[in-house]
Amino acid sequence: MKTITIIGAGMMGSALAFPARENGNTVRLVGTPLDDDVIAACKETNRHPKFRRDFPAGVTFHRFPECEALLCDTDFIICGVSSFGVDWFADAVLPTVPDGIPVLSVTKGLQDLPDGTLLTYPDLWQRKLDALGKTVPLCAVGGPCTSYELVAHDHSAVAFCGKDPGTLQMLREAMRTAYYHISLSTDVVGIESAVALKNGYALGVALTVGLCRVQFGNDELHYNSQAAVFTQAVREMSALLRLQGCAEIENLAVGLGDLYVTVYGGRTRQIGILLGEGLSAEEAKQRLSGVTLESLVVAERVGRAIRRRAEAGEIDAADFPLLLHIDEVITKGKNAALPWDRFTFPAEK
Amino acid sequence: MKTITIIGAGMMGSALAFPARENGNTVRLVGTPLDDDVIAACKETNRHPKFRRDFPAGVTFHRFPECEALLCDTDFIICGVSSFGVDWFADAVLPTVPDGIPVLSVTKGLQDLPDGTLLTYPDLWQRKLDALGKTVPLCAVGGPCTSYELVAHDHSAVAFCGKDPGTLQMLREAMRTAYYHISLSTDVVGIESAVALKNGYALGVALTVGLCRVQFGNDELHYNSQAAVFTQAVREMSALLRLQGCAEIENLAVGLGDLYVTVYGGRTRQIGILLGEGLSAEEAKQRLSGVTLESLVVAERVGRAIRRRAEAGEIDAADFPLLLHIDEVITKGKNAALPWDRFTFPAEK
Repeated sequence: MKTITIIGAGMMGSALAFPARENGNTVRLVGTPLDDDVIAACKETNRHPKFRRDFPAGVTFHRFPECEALLCDTDFIICGVSSFGVDWFADAVLPTVPDGIPVLSVTKGLQDLPDGTLLTYPDLWQRKLDALGKTVPLCAVGGPCTSYELVAHDHSAVAFCGKDPGTLQMLREAMRTAYYHISLSTDVVGIESAVALKNGYALGVALTVGLCRVQFGNDELHYNSQAAVFTQAVREMSALLRLQGCAEIENLAVGLGDLYVTVYGGRTRQIGILLGEGLSAEEAKQRLSGVTLESLVVAERVGRAIRRRAEAGEIDAADFPLLLHIDEVITKGKNAALPWDRFTFPAEK
Repeated sequence: MKTITIIGAGMMGSALAFPARENGNTVRLVGTPLDDDVIAACKETNRHPKFRRDFPAGVTFHRFPECEALLCDTDFIICGVSSFGVDWFADAVLPTVPDGIPVLSVTKGLQDLPDGTLLTYPDLWQRKLDALGKTVPLCAVGGPCTSYELVAHDHSAVAFCGKDPGTLQMLREAMRTAYYHISLSTDVVGIESAVALKNGYALGVALTVGLCRVQFGNDELHYNSQAAVFTQAVREMSALLRLQGCAEIENLAVGLGDLYVTVYGGRTRQIGILLGEGLSAEEAKQRLSGVTLESLVVAERVGRAIRRRAEAGEIDAADFPLLLHIDEVITKGKNAALPWDRFTFPAEK
């Protein structure tokens, strides 16, 4: 049995309290400074305001000021912040993590540098740790797993990635249940890149749903066009993983399962459909105010990285027509209208 | 403008009459001997009994006895039979095809040999042609495209594959429309293997839907488990394409788009759900009597091939737990219950 401190009371971090606690571990859920209301509600009802099931008995709930003291007595930390909390976590939490205590992050995303390099969040945090002179094993969770279905005990299969196999084994032993299935990978860049990229590409599939609604109305399902975009997403995700130096099929497999679930999984689907229906990114964001829209961030960052690397002659931008179209819809106000001809090869005359 | 003869008045062959005729080609739809009623209905109403839209004006409809005469004056042939008609097509049609007239096949499937080799249908037909001493360019259509959505003009992206690039260009020129997008590939084994395999793996995802209905009822959606099986399908399909000598990402991309659409596309989904809900293969077939169930055939053949190749020491059967489970459900009456532990790696202790 381990003592586990989850930091960030968003949906995914909170959902991991279920397998963690059901395995008999000691589990504390600590809110960020933005989570005070959520923590108060959890204390009062033993249920997260966005979930339909109570937490397993015994999870304790804490506001952020208690965090540092809790970290003095924990076996590992789960970081449950969204990608908008990555810098906050680096500044407010990492300096207080005792040396040697692993951090398992659920945050999916990539950060682009001016030269078009795409860094994973563990990469970013490692830079911070190096600057602090601290030794904290950074691990991360990738793969298809929506929080509410994990809470419902639907079978979910994820990959824990990190540099140290022993740490990964310990994390798996603590977290795995009859419904939460965990593979292990030491390819952190591969897993993290794949599951971040899928957020951008899920926008593409969802965009197609919106476009079909405009063309055909809501009464008919149109999977041909979604599947065509899915095929193009496989091509482009694979090429981007190659660019990241991690084209192994296992990374792509985890990323594509994640793409599959994200297409159906709520927020990214919602905004993609709105964009496909003709709303501008600003209008869509307004319509979904209060919703965390990581997919927009990753699409914009990857789009910028592709253009930079293409300018440098390292890649051919023509290999990424889907992502670049999504980026133009988001950042340049271009109308959603998929460039179908650019998805076929060899190019039509 | 070309003269195109479609043989087989099933849904997919008939659907291709839409882009073919809308492009201004001369299009004849010829039934197999089993299609007499369909042809009669098409003649009477200009609509296929299973479609919700009329054929474009000008398509002509013919019973099979007219076929041989029509083939004397055609630029190419579209073979629209199901995999249950592959041998019939080889015996009844191929001998009457004039030398040099291309055949474009929509039939998806694989045939296993006693040593576990998996042959595509173009491979099988080529053997027949060689025996006949005939020269007929064999091409095939792969990729995600359900017939009724093609008829509805949903954007659809497919790959035409064949050995001769010039023939492929001609076929694309004749068939492509603003909504029917065609890539070309000379990797016939790759495209055909990928799109046949997806039929087996779509059963796996659909099985998961059925299992979730039993566990959770019909009122909740459970995509985590579907996505987990999708990830496993990517792993296994990729390994099987490697075994077929055609692991290029493009083949996998086309196959995975096809898997995506098939999970939602009707027959395979229906039987997979029934199996997941606990019906035996026989009961499920009875429930769906009259429905063409190619997915069962391909799963059984690929399962047999995997076991043969594993017995010969060429592969490790442990790399294919999903397909082998599906096969056992179909052929051995095993209860549907996904072997989740075997989808994680490294193996749990």
